[in-house]
Formats: sequence, C-alpha cells, structure tokens
Amino acid sequence: MINEKLPKIWYGGDYNPEQWEADTWAEDDRMFKLAGIDVATINVFSWALSQPSEDDYHFEWLDETIDRLHRNGVGVCLATSTGAHPAWMAKKYPEVTRVDYHGRKRKFGGRHNSCPNSPVFRHFSKLIAGKLAERYKDHPALLIWHVSNEYGGYCYCDNCAEAFRGWLRKRYGTIDKLNKAWNTRFWGHTFYDWDEIVPPNALSEEWDGNRTNFQGISLDYRRFQSDSLLECYKIEYEELKRHTPNVPVTTNLMGFYPELNYFEWAKHLDVVSWDNYPSLDTPFSFTAMTHDLMRGLKQGQPFMLMEQTPSQQNWQAYNSLKRPGVMRLWSYQAVARGADTVMFFQLRRSVGACEKYHGAVIEHVGHENTRVFREVAELGRELQQLGDKLLDARSAAKVAIVYDWENRWATELTSGPTVALKYVDEVHKYYDALFKLGVQTAMIGVETDLSGYDIVIAPVLYMVKEGYAKKVEAFVEAGGTFVTTFFSGIVNENDIVTLGGYPGELRKVLGIWAEEIDALFPDARNQVVMKGEQGALSGTYECGLLCDLIHSEGAEVLAEYGSDFYKGMPALTVNRFGQGQAWYVATSPDARFMSDFLANLVADKGIRPLAKVPAGVEAAERVKDGKSFLFLLNHNAEEATVDLGDRGGVDLLTGSQVSGTVAIGAKGVVIVERGE
Amino acid sequence: MINEKLPKIWYGGDYNPEQWEADTWAEDDRMFKLAGIDVATINVFSWALSQPSEDDYHFEWLDETIDRLHRNGVGVCLATSTGAHPAWMAKKYPEVTRVDYHGRKRKFGGRHNSCPNSPVFRHFSKLIAGKLAERYKDHPALLIWHVSNEYGGYCYCDNCAEAFRGWLRKRYGTIDKLNKAWNTRFWGHTFYDWDEIVPPNALSEEWDGNRTNFQGISLDYRRFQSDSLLECYKIEYEELKRHTPNVPVTTNLMGFYPELNYFEWAKHLDVVSWDNYPSLDTPFSFTAMTHDLMRGLKQGQPFMLMEQTPSQQNWQAYNSLKRPGVMRLWSYQAVARGADTVMFFQLRRSVGACEKYHGAVIEHVGHENTRVFREVAELGRELQQLGDKLLDARSAAKVAIVYDWENRWATELTSGPTVALKYVDEVHKYYDALFKLGVQTAMIGVETDLSGYDIVIAPVLYMVKEGYAKKVEAFVEAGGTFVTTFFSGIVNENDIVTLGGYPGELRKVLGIWAEEIDALFPDARNQVVMKGEQGALSGTYECGLLCDLIHSEGAEVLAEYGSDFYKGMPALTVNRFGQGQAWYVATSPDARFMSDFLANLVADKGIRPLAKVPAGVEAAERVKDGKSFLFLLNHNAEEATVDLGDRGGVDLLTGSQVSGTVAIGAKGVVIVERGE
Amino acid sequence: MINEKLPKIWYGGDYNPEQWEADTWAEDDRMFKLAGIDVATINVFSWALSQPSEDDYHFEWLDETIDRLHRNGVGVCLATSTGAHPAWMAKKYPEVTRVDYHGRKRKFGGRHNSCPNSPVFRHFSKLIAGKLAERYKDHPALLIWHVSNEYGGYCYCDNCAEAFRGWLRKRYGTIDKLNKAWNTRFWGHTFYDWDEIVPPNALSEEWDGNRTNFQGISLDYRRFQSDSLLECYKIEYEELKRHTPNVPVTTNLMGFYPELNYFEWAKHLDVVSWDNYPSLDTPFSFTAMTHDLMRGLKQGQPFMLMEQTPSQQNWQAYNSLKRPGVMRLWSYQAVARGADTVMFFQLRRSVGACEKYHGAVIEHVGHENTRVFREVAELGRELQQLGDKLLDARSAAKVAIVYDWENRWATELTSGPTVALKYVDEVHKYYDALFKLGVQTAMIGVETDLSGYDIVIAPVLYMVKEGYAKKVEAFVEAGGTFVTTFFSGIVNENDIVTLGGYPGELRKVLGIWAEEIDALFPDARNQVVMKGEQGALSGTYECGLLCDLIHSEGAEVLAEYGSDFYKGMPALTVNRFGQGQAWYVATSPDARFMSDFLANLVADKGIRPLAKVPAGVEAAERVKDGKSFLFLLNHNAEEATVDLGDRGGVDLLTGSQVSGTVAIGAKGVVIVERGE
Repeated sequence: MINEKLPKIWYGGDYNPEQWEADTWAEDDRMFKLAGIDVATINVFSWALSQPSEDDYHFEWLDETIDRLHRNGVGVCLATSTGAHPAWMAKKYPEVTRVDYHGRKRKFGGRHNSCPNSPVFRHFSKLIAGKLAERYKDHPALLIWHVSNEYGGYCYCDNCAEAFRGWLRKRYGTIDKLNKAWNTRFWGHTFYDWDEIVPPNALSEEWDGNRTNFQGISLDYRRFQSDSLLECYKIEYEELKRHTPNVPVTTNLMGFYPELNYFEWAKHLDVVSWDNYPSLDTPFSFTAMTHDLMRGLKQGQPFMLMEQTPSQQNWQAYNSLKRPGVMRLWSYQAVARGADTVMFFQLRRSVGACEKYHGAVIEHVGHENTRVFREVAELGRELQQLGDKLLDARSAAKVAIVYDWENRWATELTSGPTVALKYVDEVHKYYDALFKLGVQTAMIGVETDLSGYDIVIAPVLYMVKEGYAKKVEAFVEAGGTFVTTFFSGIVNENDIVTLGGYPGELRKVLGIWAEEIDALFPDARNQVVMKGEQGALSGTYECGLLCDLIHSEGAEVLAEYGSDFYKGMPALTVNRFGQGQAWYVATSPDARFMSDFLANLVADKGIRPLAKVPAGVEAAERVKDGKSFLFLLNHNAEEATVDLGDRGGVDLLTGSQVSGTVAIGAKGVVIVERGE
Repeated sequence: MINEKLPKIWYGGDYNPEQWEADTWAEDDRMFKLAGIDVATINVFSWALSQPSEDDYHFEWLDETIDRLHRNGVGVCLATSTGAHPAWMAKKYPEVTRVDYHGRKRKFGGRHNSCPNSPVFRHFSKLIAGKLAERYKDHPALLIWHVSNEYGGYCYCDNCAEAFRGWLRKRYGTIDKLNKAWNTRFWGHTFYDWDEIVPPNALSEEWDGNRTNFQGISLDYRRFQSDSLLECYKIEYEELKRHTPNVPVTTNLMGFYPELNYFEWAKHLDVVSWDNYPSLDTPFSFTAMTHDLMRGLKQGQPFMLMEQTPSQQNWQAYNSLKRPGVMRLWSYQAVARGADTVMFFQLRRSVGACEKYHGAVIEHVGHENTRVFREVAELGRELQQLGDKLLDARSAAKVAIVYDWENRWATELTSGPTVALKYVDEVHKYYDALFKLGVQTAMIGVETDLSGYDIVIAPVLYMVKEGYAKKVEAFVEAGGTFVTTFFSGIVNENDIVTLGGYPGELRKVLGIWAEEIDALFPDARNQVVMKGEQGALSGTYECGLLCDLIHSEGAEVLAEYGSDFYKGMPALTVNRFGQGQAWYVATSPDARFMSDFLANLVADKGIRPLAKVPAGVEAAERVKDGKSFLFLLNHNAEEATVDLGDRGGVDLLTGSQVSGTVAIGAKGVVIVERGE
Repeated sequence: MINEKLPKIWYGGDYNPEQWEADTWAEDDRMFKLAGIDVATINVFSWALSQPSEDDYHFEWLDETIDRLHRNGVGVCLATSTGAHPAWMAKKYPEVTRVDYHGRKRKFGGRHNSCPNSPVFRHFSKLIAGKLAERYKDHPALLIWHVSNEYGGYCYCDNCAEAFRGWLRKRYGTIDKLNKAWNTRFWGHTFYDWDEIVPPNALSEEWDGNRTNFQGISLDYRRFQSDSLLECYKIEYEELKRHTPNVPVTTNLMGFYPELNYFEWAKHLDVVSWDNYPSLDTPFSFTAMTHDLMRGLKQGQPFMLMEQTPSQQNWQAYNSLKRPGVMRLWSYQAVARGADTVMFFQLRRSVGACEKYHGAVIEHVGHENTRVFREVAELGRELQQLGDKLLDARSAAKVAIVYDWENRWATELTSGPTVALKYVDEVHKYYDALFKLGVQTAMIGVETDLSGYDIVIAPVLYMVKEGYAKKVEAFVEAGGTFVTTFFSGIVNENDIVTLGGYPGELRKVLGIWAEEIDALFPDARNQVVMKGEQGALSGTYECGLLCDLIHSEGAEVLAEYGSDFYKGMPALTVNRFGQGQAWYVATSPDARFMSDFLANLVADKGIRPLAKVPAGVEAAERVKDGKSFLFLLNHNAEEATVDLGDRGGVDLLTGSQVSGTVAIGAKGVVIVERGE
C-alpha cells in the first residue's frame, strides 16, 4: 500500500490554489467533496512563490493550503517545486539555465529549464527539498513526496561538458579504453586528453536530434544526461528521506518517454507514478502496454496514475474531447494494469498561460453542472465503494516482452540500414497481438529475472549487453521459449559490432546466421511463406521493413521468403536448445502473422487467455489474497459480450453474479471477482 | 483628395534611376509619357547612396531625378530611404542590426534590417528624414512622403529587451499587476523585478514562431514590437511634418501582414497605402477583402494602391504571368474598393539581385513593344479619361466584418484546442459568402463605431477587449444583428479566460452557454441539421474544425448537430435582445451553409445586393456627390452577363448607356455611373 | 596509364587496418589475395593517429602497413589523412573548426571539419603531406597520392570573411567595380570599404541554404569557398610533387556534388577519381551521366572509380542490398564510361561509428563464404584476365551536353520564376533521351572546346559567360547543331541580366526573342504542337515547368503552344546560322518529345547509335589502338537481346565470337571487341 493513511484507490490530482484568489478555495473544498476527491498534488510549480529571493522562504501559503485540505479530508501528494527555477535565479545565476542542442544558451522561460549539472541549481533544489521535508514531516495530510515534475530534456553547457568528462573517466578509467569503446580511430577521432571531448550535439557530432557520427559518444551522452537528472532527483530524495524515512517518494514518469532510462530511475523511486495522455487515435493496446511497462519498472509493484485529463489535452494537434464514459473506462484500464491511484491533471483549470485549455475537474465555468464533473463524481463514488479491495493486487503473466531504453537509443542513433525502423512500434506489434488474444503480458527490462516466465519476446534486440546472451541461453536451456527478430544481436552496449556473424552472441541459442540485411523501400513487401501448416500458421503472410538473409545452423526452418533474390531463404526459424526453443522472426510481418504466431506460442506453453475477447474488448487481471479480479473493458461504442465459460464470479462494480456470457455496455467495465 | 496637385487616379510606381546609367533616363521619360505615368516613388532604398558615411550627405542625384521627373510631368512619392540601413552603419554601429527569433545577432544584409529600438538607428533615420523634408519641402513635384518601406520583422536584442521592460512598466505600473495579467504563478514564473523579464523567443518562452508557454508575454511582445516600429515611423513623420505640415505622409502596408497592428498604425498615417501581391491561386474575394480592410483602417477613407506587379512576382513559388487583361482587372478591383491610385512595383526592372524577375512596366528588353507595356499604356489612357470622377468616392456598406490583429495573435498563440484554426480563413469564409451574394461589406476593427451598420459579424472573436461586449449589447439592443461563432468570448486582452462560462462577456447577448469545445481531426465532419426551413436555410450541412457544445439560455435553437455524442445539441442559435438579434454559429460550416445563412441575414435586414452576380463576377460600389459608381468585374475567362434590372446608367469606360442585361467581356470591367 | 607499376584495371579500395588489432591483418592479406585485390587506399583518416600532438609524428604503423601490403602484392593509394583534423588541434587551436551557415562556431566532431582559410590548418596539413611524401617517395608500393577526402562544406568564420575580402579585391580591383558587379544600389547595399562586406549566410543575405537577397555575393562566395578548398588541396599537391614529381595525385570527387566547381578542380588533379553511390531508385542513365561528367572533367581522360559499395550503403534512407550481379554490372558501367579502376569503400567493415553498416568486401562475419565476397572475387578474376586491354581506352562522342557548376549555382540562387526548376534534372532529361537511343554522349563544361562535336546541347544555359556566345556562334557557323532551352542567355557571370531582350547574347544565333517567361504550377501542363511532321516529331506533346513566350526573329517555328493565352506562339524553333542550326526548346517537354527530338537531331547529323538497345540495356564504347570495345549492359532482371547487325566481334569476357543477335543475361555484361 502506498500509504496506509489512505487505504483505497486514491482519487484526486494536481491542484494549484496559489494561482487563485482565496474566494475560490471554499468552492474547491465543496466540489472536491462532491467528487470524492481525497488527494491533491500541490506545490508543483511554486518555487518562485515560496522563495522570492536567495535568502527568503515563505511557506505560509502552503501551510494554509495543506491545513485546509486536511480539514476537508484531502491528503497531499507534496511536490518539491523544483520543476522550474525562479526567474530571479536565472537572472542572478545564469548557469542554472541550459544550453540547448544547437549550442544556444537559454534565457529564463518554460519549465524543465535547469541544467542538471549546475552546482547552483543543485544547491538550491536540495535546500528547498530539505526545508519542505522538515516543515511538513509530521503533517497528518502528507501522503507522499513528489520530486520535481516530469524530468526531461538534455543540456549541453560547459558544466555538463565537464561533468561528462568526469562521468566518462569513471566509466572507462583510461582514455585508451574510451578510444577503444567508441572506435575513435574511425574518422581520426583519437582523443589524447579528456579535455578534448565535447558534448555531442549539433555543433559537434550530431544533427537532427538523433543522427550522429559516433554512436559511442552519443549513447554515453544519453546515459550521462539520464544519470545527471537522476542525480538531481536523488539529491532531493536523500533530503526528504533524512526527515521522513517512512514517507514514500516518487516523481512522475511519462511512459515511453525517450530521453530517460526509467529502469535505472525506478530503482530510486519508492513507487512508480506516471502521466497518461493518449490521443484520440492512440491504440488502446498501446496505452495498455505503457501501463504494463510502468508496472514492470519495479517488477510488478503497483503504480500511481499520477495524471490524466478528465476531458481533453491542450498540447495535442487536435484536442478531441474524451467521449462520455471514456474517462472512466481509461481510469479502470489503469487500475486493471496495476494503478492504485486515479489522478487528474488538474483539479481546477488555470485561467492563463499555455495549459488553460487542458481539461480539469472544475472547468472555467466553475460549477458542478458539467458533463465532465458528473463523470468525475460518479467515478469518485465507485472508487469509494471499491475501498481497499484491489490495493496491492498483482498482475500475473507468463509471457514477457523485453523493452530497453538503451537499445532504443542505439536503434535510433544507428546509421542504416533503414530510417523506417521504430523500435517501440516493433515492440508494440508483439504486444498488440498478445493483447488481442487476451493474454496477459509483462513488460520487462534487460535486468529483469526471466525465470518466472514461460515465453520471453525481445523484438529487435539490436544491443545485447554483457551477460544477456548467457541469460537467454540459461532461460531456454531450462525450457523457456525465447523469441527475437531481425536486426538483433548486432552490437554490444557501446554499439560496437559483435564480430563473427550476426546475430552475434545470440547466434548459438538461435541456431542461425544472418548473412545480410536488406532494407525495403516504404511500400515494398516480401512474403513469409509457411513450409507447412504449423498450428494456426499456414499459407503466406506479408512482411516488410527489413529482411534478414539468414542460414540455418541447426534451427528448423518453418517459413521462407516468397520473393526477391532471397526467395526460399528462411524467414522464420526455431531452434531446440536444451529444454526450450529459440525463435527467430527474420523480418517484420503483418498483423495476421503476429496473431497466428503468438497464438501458437501460447498454446504450446499451455497459457490460457484471460478470456476470449471480441475485437475492442480488453482483458486484464489482478490477483490478491487468492482472489482474481478479471477486468473486461469494452472500448467499443456498442455493447459487447464475453463468454466467461464456467468461471463466473461477482461483478465488483454492481455486486451482481456474472457467469456464462456477460454483456458489457458501450465503453463499459466489468470487474469479475472470483477465486484464482 | 490625396494631393490636389494631381487630381486624378495616380498612375505610376517605384522608380530607381540610381541603379541605372544616365543614358537610360531619357528613355524612361519617353516611355513614362507613352504609358501615362504621372507619379514615381523614388528614394526608397538610397540611404547608402545619399549618406556615404556618418557626416556626408549627397542629395545631388536626387535633386536631378526630381527635377527631371517634374520636367516630364511626373510627380514624386518621396521615400525617406530608411527601409535599409547602409553597410557602413552596421559595421560602425553593430547595434543597428537585429537579433533574431533564435537569438542570433545579425550582420549586415537584406532590408527591414534595423533594430527599432536602436538609438543609433533612430538618430540617423530622424536626421535623414529631416534633411529630405527641408530640402524638398517646396519642390512642386512633391506629392506625398513615403516613410521607410514595408515595415516588418521583430528584434530581440538587448536594446529591445530594455525598451520592452520600459513599455511593460508603462502598461502595468507595478510588477504585481504584470504578474497577475500574465498569470505568472503558473509554472512558477513570478517576477520580482522588471530586469528578470526577457523577450519571449526561441531562447526563452517560445518555439516555432508562434508557439508559447505564456500567451501574456508573447502578446505583449507583439504589441511592443508593433509599437516600436510605429515609433520609428512616428519619429520620421514628425520630422517631415515639421517642415511640410501640408504634405501627406504614408508608409506602405501589406494587407493582412501578421506582425503589425495596422489599426494602430493607421491612426498615424495621413493616407493608407498598401502593396497588393496576390498569387494566381489567391481567391479574388480574398484580394477584395484585403482592399476592404485597408479601406477600413481609416474608416472608409480612400487609400493608395502603392504597389502591384504589372506581370509577375519573383518571390512566389510559381510566378505565373498575369493573364491578358488581369492587370487592368485587378487595378479596377482596387479602385472599386477605394483605391485612388494605381501604382506598380516597378517602373523599370532591375538588372541584378533578388527582384530582377519581378515584373515591371519597362522590361529588360527595354522598349515599349511588349504585351505588358501595351496593357499598362492602355490603362494609363483610361485613367486619364476618368479624371477626378472617382476620387474620394466612398463605399457604403450596411454589413461589417470585424477583424482584429490582437485577436489573431491570440488565436495563433493559444495552445489548444486545435492547430487547424486559422483566424483569417474563418473571417474570409464569411466575407466570401457576402461577396458572392454581391453584398458590399466593410472590414472594421474593434474600435470602429458600429452604429452605421445593420449587421456586424465577428468570426472567432476569441479575445473580447474591455468594453467590447457592452458595445455589442448596445448595438443589438438598438436593433442590430450581431453574428459570432465558436471559440468566441473566451479571453480578455491578456489572454486570461473570462470565468463563469463561455462565451464569457458575450454570453448574455447571445443567450447561450458553451460547456465544451470539441476539436475534430482534419478529415472528420459533423453536420448542422436545420430544425425546420428557415428562409434559404434548410436540411443538412457539413461542418468541422471545432464544435462548441452549447446550451441555450434563452436563444432560439435553429439547428442541431447531426452526429457524435452531442448529436441534438444546438449548432446554430439566435437570441432576441432588445430590438436586435445575436447569432451564434457553434462550428465551422461548409460554404453552402454560409451562402444560405448570409442570404437570410441580409434579406431580413432588407439589404439588397449591389447586383445579382453570376459566379466569377464581382460587384462593388463607390459613391460620390449623389452618384453611384457600380463596378462589375468579370474574373472569368469567358464573357458574363449581369442583369441591372431597371437601374441602368452610363458605362464610365465607354461612355455608352447600359441597362437591362449587360455583357462583360472575359476579364472585363464595366463601371456603371448612375444616381444613388 | 595511371601508374605503370600496375598495368591493369586496379581493384581494391579503402582499407583501415589501424582500426583493427594485428591479428586480423594476416586474414586481410589472405582474403585480398582470394579476391584479386591489388590496390588499397590507406591512411585516409589517420591524422590523429600519426600526429598525437603538435610536435610528435608516428608513422611506424604506416610503414608496417605499406610494407605488409607490398609483400602481399597490393599497391597503395596513399591518402594524406587531412580529411579530418585531430581533436587536440581543435582544442588547442579553435580556429581550425568551421563556423556554419547559421553562424554557429563548431566544436570538434565529424569530418570535413577544417576551415579552409585557417592558417593553422594550412600549416599542419602542408606539414604532414610533406612528411608523408618524403617518407614514402621511394616506396615501391606507392601508386598514387590521395589528398584529403571528399572535399566539401563551406565555412563562414572571420578568417574566411577576411580571406573573402582579399579574394574580392583580387577579382574586382576596386570597390566600385564590385558594387557595379553586384548591383548593390539595389536595396541600398553600396559598400564604401571592403571591411563592410560580410559572408552571405543565414545571418546576413541568405536563408534556407540557397535563397539569397543578392545573387552576386552569393555566387562569389561559392566560387571563393570552392577556391579556398582547392587552395588547401593545392598546398598539399605542391608538397607531394616536390618530393614525388612522377607520382600522380588525386582527390576523390563526388559526381554532381553541388558545392565545388569540379571543372576548376580537375585542372589540378593528375587523374580524376570519384565515389559512386547510386540508390536503388537512381536511374542508371543518371549514373552513366555522372561517369561521363567525371570523364569530361579532364577532356575524356580515363578516371578512377575510387569508391563504390560492394553491397549496401549506410547513409541512405533505405539501404537496399545490391542485387546479385549488380555490383559487377555497375563496375562495368564505370569501366564502360572511362574508369580504369574499380575500387570499393571498403575492404573491411568497421566495427563501430556511423559507417559500420556500409557494405565491405570483408563483412563483419569475417570470412569469405558470403555472397558479397564471392561476387567480389569473381569480378577480381575477370579483371585480372582483362589485363591492360582497356586501359587508357577513350570514349568517342559526337554529341556533347554542357554542364556548368556556376550556372547551377545561379539557377538555384535566383529568386523566380519558379522554385521547381532543377538544373541537373533538365540536363538529365536530354542525356537520358540520348542514352535510351544508344547514342554516346560527352559531358562538357563551358571551357571545353566544341570543335570536335556535331551537336552541342546546353539545357537551361541561364548564365552565359564572357565569350561563350561567340564560341557558340562560331560552332554553329561552322556547321554545328546547337540546342538550348527556355530560361537561357539571361545573365552574365555575376547574375546581371543581359539587357535588350532574352536570350541575351544567344539571341542572334537562335534567331528568337523571349518576351516573357510563364511559370506553371506543379500539375499544370501546356502542349507542344508540331506544325507538321518533322522526322520522328509529329502531333502533340505535353510540357510544363516554364514556358518562354517567344517570337521568331528569323528562326523557323516548328511547334507552337497548344493552350493558354500564348497558344500559337512558338514552342520549338530552329535557326539556320552559317552552316549550322541553332535550336530553341522554349519549355520543358515530356520524355516522348525528348526521344523524338533527339532521334531527329542525331539522324540529321548521321550519328549512328552504338547499338539499337531495348529498354533497360545500356550501350557504351571505348576505343583504343584502332579497336572498339562495345559494352552492352543489361540492367533488366531478365535476359535481353541486342542485334549487332553485321558488326560482330569477340566477347572480351568469354572469349567467344558474337555476331548477329546477342543475348545478354539478366544483369549481364557483354564487351564486344572489334575493329573501329
């Protein structure tokens, strides 16, 4: 449980009373009560307010806010306010602002605006975190600490350059090792002194954001910047923990946000929290996958849905309203996949600046007679009724998909073979197929222990880090099913090719050799032609993007390419290795292949879907104390039915018995409680 | 009359004899005479020539030029030459060059290149304007002063930053009021000292030119830069007026140019002048609307067509030739809508640099035996025959469309609800419908008095400035018909939302409440379904872009949405208020709706079209001394006919009687003179 | 012969053993032998390795490499390593890095990274070139010097600015002449001192890379930068020649690379060499044209194919594999068009950084059992068998197409009449038509002597340099056929318009006057309507892009426009002038017109195709010692046949007799040796 003070699914969100006159506050209190709000995230952007100058601190406004919320039964998720530095600080200490990718020194403005290696920023952020912790450590309203906000962005200033050199020195020890790791003899880049190294950006090795001459330095700079921001987080974390060792600490993550290696970050978060902002056209399986990833960051530990909009965003191109029922549906989707909180950005809509068209519980009209408020209040009532039933419930999965931020950086930074390769999309193709089959999936990192899974799928595992191939071998040897794809096993963690034939260290377990990799033009297609019927797989499928030209070295060839000069070469292989199997999907096939292929794999392993779901219906399960909670989420605009077979139970939301075929209304939710 | 020295429609244009050897000048004189040229705009870009160094001024070349033109019967529109500073000035005083949006200090080059807040630039530009005025104040050829050229572009240098702070101090008085006006507690942006404020650009609050974190500072910076350039204009204006109080002063505007608030500028222009450069695919109703806007800047006062090309531009992507007759047609379009001059850029084509492929009266071939010259000369003869008949004639309109530059900035800067909203396009939709109905329309600003109009249409009046809602209420109360649309009445002039329900201050007069605003994806459509037949309106129309979800609070609901979850909610309402009506068009409907809707409105008010015009024929009217001049302009490539009914008259261009059905040749023009 | 030490078609490529541990070298030696490799380009990017600090030089590694290669029968193409400066140099002497187009000072990174006007760079590059020449001058393995690598990129730093002023002073003598040449009175740009001139980039006169306010300064800056880089080349060249006057020197060019005027460069190259990287979708006639251009740089002298990939690139968007046989086919295409070497980038694939996915002879797998290696080795055997048979053979052509880099710059810099005009594409249209007719074509510059040709085609000869019109007149007078097109003869070499009527100085020989130039929107079309049958030309063809509105002044009108207001005006004319003809193609017609038009021209001149080739088959001929070598290259994926008629011979590759109809396999090559 995140905090035993509030033993239910937390319900609330970002709240900025300091942007308002006192006369709105009583109205806030009244409406929070109406909506069943019991947690407010406060102080997110109040640094300038609380610290008007270098030596002045004024927390009286915050005292009042917390006291008032507490009086009204609302706990606080207390932010440290360091997500944006004050204007006076930027003026007095220009070092706190960043230098951007183009080498431009920034001036005051925006948020996420502090250089993570600025000693001044680190000094002041540590100071205010400590002051807040000391001041509120015993306040009964305090539920959790919220450090900064949506960390992100890189800096390329001289402080960062110097810190980067220190980071490299620590990583490599000697300049010779660095030269080797980055292969600097290419293009005559040998360094003789650490001082010769400059950050890779548009002034040196990179262009267009993710194009680089040297993958080695570019990868390391991403690691370094992710670490630098994490260091800022940890400095505040330590200060908070010094005063409140038992209050949990988090910072809000952003799903598949590319710039930070969240698997590293999660080690230092007491609980993962994240902000979920799908667009009208985001596939709901993509949102599901993101929830699963956030849950996977801490090996299945429940997480916080820290932000979602009750109605619409403001920063998307076309900010469609969430249709009636969708906010509730997507809230339960989060809960179904491990969220123990449902929180909004924001409780009251701001009147000015760039987020005033971002939806809120209390709209600009100011009263409760809105569609949005009614939907919020209805969900608030439901969550109160649910009590602590679902808290801490876990999600069991026998299938895992590997996702690795550093692999993503490497695939995006690499020059060739195709600009069309999008790692996350390839991961999603596998996830989506499992999702549609109703199979629960875990999203895991490369450090995650594999022993609990029957099937591990690692799409485009381009970068194979030290020890990972052995880990895969052990997993397969022990009976596991491993799946990987084209363009895997190519490089080590410095993007240096593993010589001797692709897929490098994975070659042995896969029993194949990839001689060449063909890149297809966007509209070009080849075919995956099955050599015979193989469970659900049969006949011919389409494929594209990349085609590895592989040779079997022991693996069984199940399908071949259907055209081009490599017609007849293997397109799908499986290698028996120890007790298990290692599959190689040599290209990027169509969705029909995915579905048939994964249906086979799970059937082989005897993994049963959570439910046989029709199109548009999502199934997810949480388990706790020997009980199963099966979530059936109908994303369709029409009623759908699911056959529960003989495993009926009680619908948690209505209390009624369900069994056999259950009908779920348009955008509806059923949570079936039953014995595991 | 602009200047009684030349009591006819002026005919001429930009002339740069200083770019040529003396041997061409006699040829110029000869050909000007052939073409009926009687005005030349000179000295536009001659600063470097006239002032070769800080203390040297050499106007002898200009003396000669003016004398020569005068001897040949050509008056001068005398520019002050400050549209581009000399290279020596940029070298000696780097402060005169600008810092651009990306924070880059510019070097010498281009035009529009001076920082408007550079003391050095202001010093030297004032000096040369004064010297010119003193030197030529009594020259008989002097018709009008032309300050600088096509003012535009913003600067972000330290001089501007400092001046901006002064400007803000004057606007807000205290830093607290500024913080309030910009809602700086959002994202912790509270300022404690004026010095903490930096210009909003790509280094601070903005990106992509019109994206911003803080609308308040971004709006104010646009106001400030518009004012700064205006200040430069005024400094020269004062100098000129000091010597020649009776010679009119202008500067050439650029229609819907986004960066300057021309309604403010027009207050300081004796006569509005502008440069008209439509492309082959510019709707001719858009050009008409622009002329009407330029006329509206000074409440209907005739304006100067300062520049147009006789044949083609050079800076468009595809510089199509003006087809035979089109130059004449478009010249009369300008006159029809209030121009008292027809002037070209340029009289002789330059031989080098970036405008050498811009059309000119005298082409590179150098003689008069060209299609372009023949057309120019024919029009010259016609304008001589017209004499002063049309001079000072006014344009009467009972329908007005509101256009406001600050509202445009605000709609473009706002983050959400859709990137697809283009304010000018929405304005044009209404204008175009009236245009096609043959109804004369005035383009007015938000300061314009409404009492002369029967119908006032304010599309997307997102920003409602102080007092404007009251003004609208008074107008409607007194019997006026007011129309506004979705996304109106939302904010005040600092882009701060008017709380209590959209459309804010307009809610009372409109009798509706807009609860939510849905943004549609580009290809998505909803429908406007009429509840019954309503004049021309009946059945179902398409709509898109944005759909306000409104509730009637007294207004009559005439149409509803046809689909989506807000099917059945009002899409078109009218509220009786006092003697008048206030309409709300809750979405952006198709052209067919526009036509039927506006046909109804004008019919209700008994406003008769100028003529019932077929497709491609434009009607416009000027009136003077009890006489009406009805312009019928045939934009088609084929002959068209217009039925004048019983209101015949004399065709001013041919002298022949016209009545009943009049035929207008392809690209032809008829001007029917008759009693009002 | 490039170097008599290796009297055969050289076979090899870039080789970077310094990127590898010593244990791979023996394997390299073994595999080079297997593949028939006899030349290695080394030391291309080893500056930092050989010179670890200002005063240290270490060439021991290079000694070993050269000795080892020599022991194994591999000669060396020895690079000077100055294509990228060492990191220590950038750190110690920041002046060696460039300032980019946006005015940003670059830091260390990439390649092509040295300011060409940096005294420090010039000092050190001269020094190392001299040291290399001195050290290896007598080494028996030394075949040729390779200066730097793929020169390119411009710099805008203060050193360049100062050097530019010196360059201008030399070109113009006085500031007055410069002002005149650039027409600086336009926009008030008169310069009074050389110091006032700044490089034209995004901070001054230009934007978007090739948009400018002043074509004069922009053209001169391109000339100046091309000259500056050439100067760097020449400094090294002199040093090399001082020690090894008899060893040839080259630097690798890049075909139609836009930034350098290779006709100027070629004067200082002992032999032209170039890097050929077509994409899967590059028309093979475009590659052929590029080879012909490279051959044309030194008036037909054979050239080196310095780089091509054996399999795939890494830097294209979609790096398709070369299909089986294609590497061989394209290698012979190079030889067919004048190459006396076939060389690859690279011999062994690098393990890290941005080119690791660039194909190589030795792939990452490291052994010879790959498709790519097999194809390389087979070609190696063939080339050994060919011996010196083709060396120094020339290519005879009676048709020449003019291509001029400065004309390209001018057409791209010019503002108007259309952004759609791509000079190289217009050149290619003419080339492609001849190519498909099987007619051998020479690509020539404007300095090339015309007397050897029957037909000279100069598409879009916008810029006519001093004396060129006279040269054309003399050519036509003497019986030549000259063809030019729309938008020709407009300006002189400073982009100053030739007054008196287009096409300026070409007007007399062409016998026409172009009154106006219409730019068509992208999808707009007009027609070229033949006035009668004219050989292959008859009926109606489509055209677009630009349409000159011309009048005959003596020329015969063969076709007219088919629509728009200039319907009936001439679209195709021919002028008899002296003994010859001068054609004007007034617009950009479709491919069918091109084919018919050029078929007529060559038939009129009695020029016989090399062979009547079916679609997809390329013909090219080299001649030597009274023998003709006819190359027939089948680019199709299926067999094709060519009828040799009565001119049979011996297939050089198989030794068998060929005559009558010869079959060429898919992607196959036949080289028919026969008497001339």
